[in-house]
Amino acid sequence: MSSARPLPVTGAWRPGDEPGHRQFFTFATDRRFALDCGVALSDVTIAYETWGVLDADGANAILLCHAWTGDSHATGPAGRGHPTSGWWDDTVGPGKPIDTDRYFVVCANVLGGCQGTTGPASPHPLDGQPYGSRFPVVTIRDMVRSQARLMEHLGVRRWMAVIGGSMGGMQALEWAVMYPRRIRSMVAIATCMQATAQQIAWGAIGRRAIRLDPKWRDGDYYDAEPGDGPGEGLEIARMVAQVTFRSDNVFTDRFGRELADKAAVGDTLGMWQRFEVERYLEYHGQKLARRFDTNSYLAIGKAMDLHDVARGRGSLERAMARVIAPTMAVGIWSDMLYPAYQQQQIHHTLLANGVPSEYIEIDSPHGHDAFLINSDQLDEPLERFLDGIAKSDT
Amino acid sequence: MSSARPLPVTGAWRPGDEPGHRQFFTFATDRRFALDCGVALSDVTIAYETWGVLDADGANAILLCHAWTGDSHATGPAGRGHPTSGWWDDTVGPGKPIDTDRYFVVCANVLGGCQGTTGPASPHPLDGQPYGSRFPVVTIRDMVRSQARLMEHLGVRRWMAVIGGSMGGMQALEWAVMYPRRIRSMVAIATCMQATAQQIAWGAIGRRAIRLDPKWRDGDYYDAEPGDGPGEGLEIARMVAQVTFRSDNVFTDRFGRELADKAAVGDTLGMWQRFEVERYLEYHGQKLARRFDTNSYLAIGKAMDLHDVARGRGSLERAMARVIAPTMAVGIWSDMLYPAYQQQQIHHTLLANGVPSEYIEIDSPHGHDAFLINSDQLDEPLERFLDGIAKSDT
Repeated sequence: MSSARPLPVTGAWRPGDEPGHRQFFTFATDRRFALDCGVALSDVTIAYETWGVLDADGANAILLCHAWTGDSHATGPAGRGHPTSGWWDDTVGPGKPIDTDRYFVVCANVLGGCQGTTGPASPHPLDGQPYGSRFPVVTIRDMVRSQARLMEHLGVRRWMAVIGGSMGGMQALEWAVMYPRRIRSMVAIATCMQATAQQIAWGAIGRRAIRLDPKWRDGDYYDAEPGDGPGEGLEIARMVAQVTFRSDNVFTDRFGRELADKAAVGDTLGMWQRFEVERYLEYHGQKLARRFDTNSYLAIGKAMDLHDVARGRGSLERAMARVIAPTMAVGIWSDMLYPAYQQQQIHHTLLANGVPSEYIEIDSPHGHDAFLINSDQLDEPLERFLDGIAKSDT
Repeated sequence: MSSARPLPVTGAWRPGDEPGHRQFFTFATDRRFALDCGVALSDVTIAYETWGVLDADGANAILLCHAWTGDSHATGPAGRGHPTSGWWDDTVGPGKPIDTDRYFVVCANVLGGCQGTTGPASPHPLDGQPYGSRFPVVTIRDMVRSQARLMEHLGVRRWMAVIGGSMGGMQALEWAVMYPRRIRSMVAIATCMQATAQQIAWGAIGRRAIRLDPKWRDGDYYDAEPGDGPGEGLEIARMVAQVTFRSDNVFTDRFGRELADKAAVGDTLGMWQRFEVERYLEYHGQKLARRFDTNSYLAIGKAMDLHDVARGRGSLERAMARVIAPTMAVGIWSDMLYPAYQQQQIHHTLLANGVPSEYIEIDSPHGHDAFLINSDQLDEPLERFLDGIAKSDT
């Protein structure tokens, strides 16, 4: 709770801020970009980064899709314009499994995000003021449609692979369903075809915590003074997520029943005396509140809850029957948020449809976040999978 | 959120309210009742209920220990003075596994509770105003010590069995450790020897949600107008707990991705349009807010987080070495909050110490709450276990 620096009103990247490695692509300036919710956006900007060089035949392009609080900075250090280092630093780069010496790699901040792509903190084209509560509900499909515009802009006709974990995997799945002829393969990690009731439940609790925060002001907080913006609701929402991202065993090993600030409080029992695990969760919550926008957290969380490849397509079977991309589905045995059975379902559904699919399981105690923590277990299979696709004729 | 009746400021039973089946025992009127936190209480009242008749030799007394939001009303209908029907109606009663024709059964509302036992909503002896923020931190051991006073008052020299699930099981364990010669057996269901970091994490999130509720007023809200008391923070805290009390599979089967109020909202996508699982969680949160006191929820939740039979006793091994009571440990295979490995740990620890112990696992998909939902699976083993104790000489 205490901090020398006042909490910024929003951790969003705003026009005028240092661009860092971002590039920008703006579309729908003369036509409107229709969203699933029925609202249309204009002047949609996508912030993205690329690594490597697109081949003359355009066959080596890979799209990376980021998760909830990620952004376009998939690899590279933190620095001017980038609040965090790359979220997949060990996996993406020259000579790494996603080899930027060989592939043209693209990563875009999602629609609704807060790191350069149009989202709730962005200026509304009509008045230049932040959208705030005016920002419409977006879906994973809307994110993918905006990425398809970027694809055209970049001159990529087909992605060699679309790759993502968690919400990134939802995007990969939607790419495979929406644009079966524009992707040659997908890698779907720790994700699902449809958000389950329990996943929605965790999301709903976070939403309610944010709504309870008086400083959230129904989403219109951008003109608040520093330190008077939302933060505590987002912090609590993130605490919920952080527990679901990790695991019982690792929490026990790492924190046990240790008290925080033990030197100061001794063995006194107090209602607000924290255990070490509480300090850890609050630290992560506050850290997120410094670098992320509360409304983006809401928007993206809702997009995940709305994720359902079957929606409007008759049935799950009919939706998945559209997929022709060879697939690598990746589960994590200790994942309590997107349990491994969900990635096995993807794998078995595709196999039943005659689509080449393999299933890999990360053997890690770290829970959902193992797709970032133990990504080394993916190195060999991922490199092999991509090499196979690169050398195939499809 | 919307409701015709304004939310009561507290769902606590208050002096002057209909007593229902409660009886009351007040102690520490001339001496002080010392708590683990260093504070001493005076004029401690315990609200309790009894069923059946204590044998002349006093050998047939069973103590039931309730869980977080339970109370002394273990069996019997809701009605005047009792906001809920008995929490273990199917298990406790004439001819039932805990047979009140045969045993003298006692259940007391815990210290810190809100259904007649001294808690944060109770009048402070000094000024008659609710304790509110003045109520000290209590522990499971404090609860058990207060039950030991009640035991003397009732003329019970030894409990034939101390039985409880969840927090009730924590009390059973502490009885076995603190008063090894005053209990002849224990039944510890879906509980643990030490709250884990993950369990503390869930508790901490609930605490933070309550603290964020402006109507909680740092715990001093009892003079608020009806409808202006805390409720939303407690509702969110309960939503967290409710997810951990149930299971992924059952949420999927029961709610899937159904929308609430579908007739009204159609397929419109809106940020605050609820899925059925959200409606369910909010319903349970609001229901609790009507019948429970927010400060009691905090007090009891903290007591659970502080639960550690090893605290101040050198080690877990040394603490558990005090236990001599034959034990039935009960796990639930789908319990994500108190996973079955924790009850197996109790069982194996006792066996290793030469204490008779059996382990039973409830085969239910319902998660933690299965100890109430599927208690029928306990009927036969529980009846047999109690019969064995009743007929033993110990």
